[in-house]
Amino acid sequence: MTQPDDQRWMALALSLGKRGLGQTWPNPAVGCVIVKGGRLLARGWTQAGGRPHAEQAALAQLAKGAAKGATAYVTLEPCSHTGQTPPCASALVAAGVARVVVATGDPDPRVSGRGLAMLREAGIEVVTGVLEAEARRDQQGFLLRITEGRPFLTLKLASSFDGRIATATGESQWITGPQARQQVQALRASHDAVMVGGSTARQDFPSLTLRGMGDRQQPVRVVISAELNVPTHGPLAEDETGAPVWLVHGPDAAPSAQEFWRKRGATLVSVGAEPSGLDLSAALQALAQAGLTRVLCEGGGSLAASLLSAGLVDQVVGFTAGVMLGANGLPSLGALQYRALDDAPRFTLLGSSRIGEDVMHVWRRVGD
Amino acid sequence: MTQPDDQRWMALALSLGKRGLGQTWPNPAVGCVIVKGGRLLARGWTQAGGRPHAEQAALAQLAKGAAKGATAYVTLEPCSHTGQTPPCASALVAAGVARVVVATGDPDPRVSGRGLAMLREAGIEVVTGVLEAEARRDQQGFLLRITEGRPFLTLKLASSFDGRIATATGESQWITGPQARQQVQALRASHDAVMVGGSTARQDFPSLTLRGMGDRQQPVRVVISAELNVPTHGPLAEDETGAPVWLVHGPDAAPSAQEFWRKRGATLVSVGAEPSGLDLSAALQALAQAGLTRVLCEGGGSLAASLLSAGLVDQVVGFTAGVMLGANGLPSLGALQYRALDDAPRFTLLGSSRIGEDVMHVWRRVGD
Repeated sequence: MTQPDDQRWMALALSLGKRGLGQTWPNPAVGCVIVKGGRLLARGWTQAGGRPHAEQAALAQLAKGAAKGATAYVTLEPCSHTGQTPPCASALVAAGVARVVVATGDPDPRVSGRGLAMLREAGIEVVTGVLEAEARRDQQGFLLRITEGRPFLTLKLASSFDGRIATATGESQWITGPQARQQVQALRASHDAVMVGGSTARQDFPSLTLRGMGDRQQPVRVVISAELNVPTHGPLAEDETGAPVWLVHGPDAAPSAQEFWRKRGATLVSVGAEPSGLDLSAALQALAQAGLTRVLCEGGGSLAASLLSAGLVDQVVGFTAGVMLGANGLPSLGALQYRALDDAPRFTLLGSSRIGEDVMHVWRRVGD
Repeated sequence: MTQPDDQRWMALALSLGKRGLGQTWPNPAVGCVIVKGGRLLARGWTQAGGRPHAEQAALAQLAKGAAKGATAYVTLEPCSHTGQTPPCASALVAAGVARVVVATGDPDPRVSGRGLAMLREAGIEVVTGVLEAEARRDQQGFLLRITEGRPFLTLKLASSFDGRIATATGESQWITGPQARQQVQALRASHDAVMVGGSTARQDFPSLTLRGMGDRQQPVRVVISAELNVPTHGPLAEDETGAPVWLVHGPDAAPSAQEFWRKRGATLVSVGAEPSGLDLSAALQALAQAGLTRVLCEGGGSLAASLLSAGLVDQVVGFTAGVMLGANGLPSLGALQYRALDDAPRFTLLGSSRIGEDVMHVWRRVGD
């Protein structure tokens, strides 16, 4: 049975779980709080690299016996399988908690209800579905990887007021202000990987690394280039941040290019081609297979349009600046395939806010 | 000397003054409150058509002698010249107010300090500059008409996420939602005129009238068309709302077209041409000459781009929808003339908010 404070404690657990987004893949970013007599005893969240799990992180803060009779709030069903660590369900049983409140179930076939069953068998009261919609939104990457075999994909588009990302001569620094650019760093930090198309890699020589975000794991840098035509100098080939580089290419990528990047320590991902270009659905499947749960696409306009046309975009984050670049500017999106206005890709507004001199607006796939 | 509550009462007067925006041209939309012993005695604002003035509207609510010793808060310097009514400065003197607080001076050469002088000569304490920046922002249309001989110009751009206003086949109903469209009605209501280019008139057959906004004066409908190529059927030629139609054309407009519209009761405004098209600066000067203080331009992309390139846009109101139309969609702005990103037209964010399913964002000319 739910109790009056369940939502409040679960909201805290959710906010803790969010800290792990981008850091725990392929594991989920879970949050956990342990409460007794209305007092917070311990807080935990999945640590970078995926271990310890949130429940273990929270229990580790407590003296032996302190959790006896307590309630544990966990944003995802506790695991029931012995991996590198003993299962969290057993740990909660051993700690003697009386009640476990869970936001949503774990579809991982190794868990899927078994975690909850282990708790119940030990005589623990189990409540599920508290703030479930919020939890599923946060963990959508982990869930999609299991249920659809692809990562959650965020498309970031920072543009002029009229949807342009550069002048006719290619000038693009800076359309949005420093606060918006800092916000993009925060977006990168909450994703497992940052992805761009080959032409953006060739035109902008982006580093795609995390800067000014403290001591966090660098996201994987993914470049999608059918021909593996990625600059062999510049930050992607040369930097020393240790951020991994994964290159997704098609069957026709030159062996010499493959050799070059392999020697640089890059991971090469080969996928099939379609008449219109690389099979992006297969590309994302391969990225999920390799463990990615949350991917941030930062352009360019051609890759963004292909992802939208293929229905692979779950979230869009827009930054709109107060500058006008006109029809002579470079469009943020390439051509899209749809027959009529009703068929064009449409997203639902989550919210908007001022970020320094610009407007940030966040949208989700209709129906999510 | 200012007193602690001056800002609070002036804020009320400003909010009253705003009610007249779009209704009082060529007169300013002024607000007035009369306060005594910390109590509100009367409120007034300039009425539709420009009369009575705010001060007279407020004083009319009071019994003879009731304003004796009171403070009047007025958002613009009271007038000092006898027009269709006796000057407001005299009315305040006659009412016996002890103190007049004014937000900003009136640059009208018939007033310009004389209103304040009349009050002071009558022994009234006069305080100026309370919430002056806010007052000047509200009254910018009235002020620009006097100081620069042109109206305040708002550009409205409602577009897809990526800055498109129609699909490749011209489909544009509906990109933004019903709440955003209702907000556009409110924008129209607060402007003296609604303006579009000739191609928008030909493609969309817009009515440009105020709908669902109660009993307010209809804005003037202005079409800018060098050749006077405006559809001779449809709402602009045929509707019965009584909303005036003003057509701005160049020297080459066919006499038969001029004749047609004159017979329909339209006002024809002839201005010179430049190599790039109509002289828009001259067009706006002519509109100001005819009394307009606030003009809302609703497109199309070509007129909007020309106004931006000419530096004639004071405010931009954007509505961004969550639909993607891609580079095959029709751009919201035509080509702009600027050399580098630093020279492109730039605006400062006033604020943004959710309007139904869309984001509304309001920007002002940098420096205003």
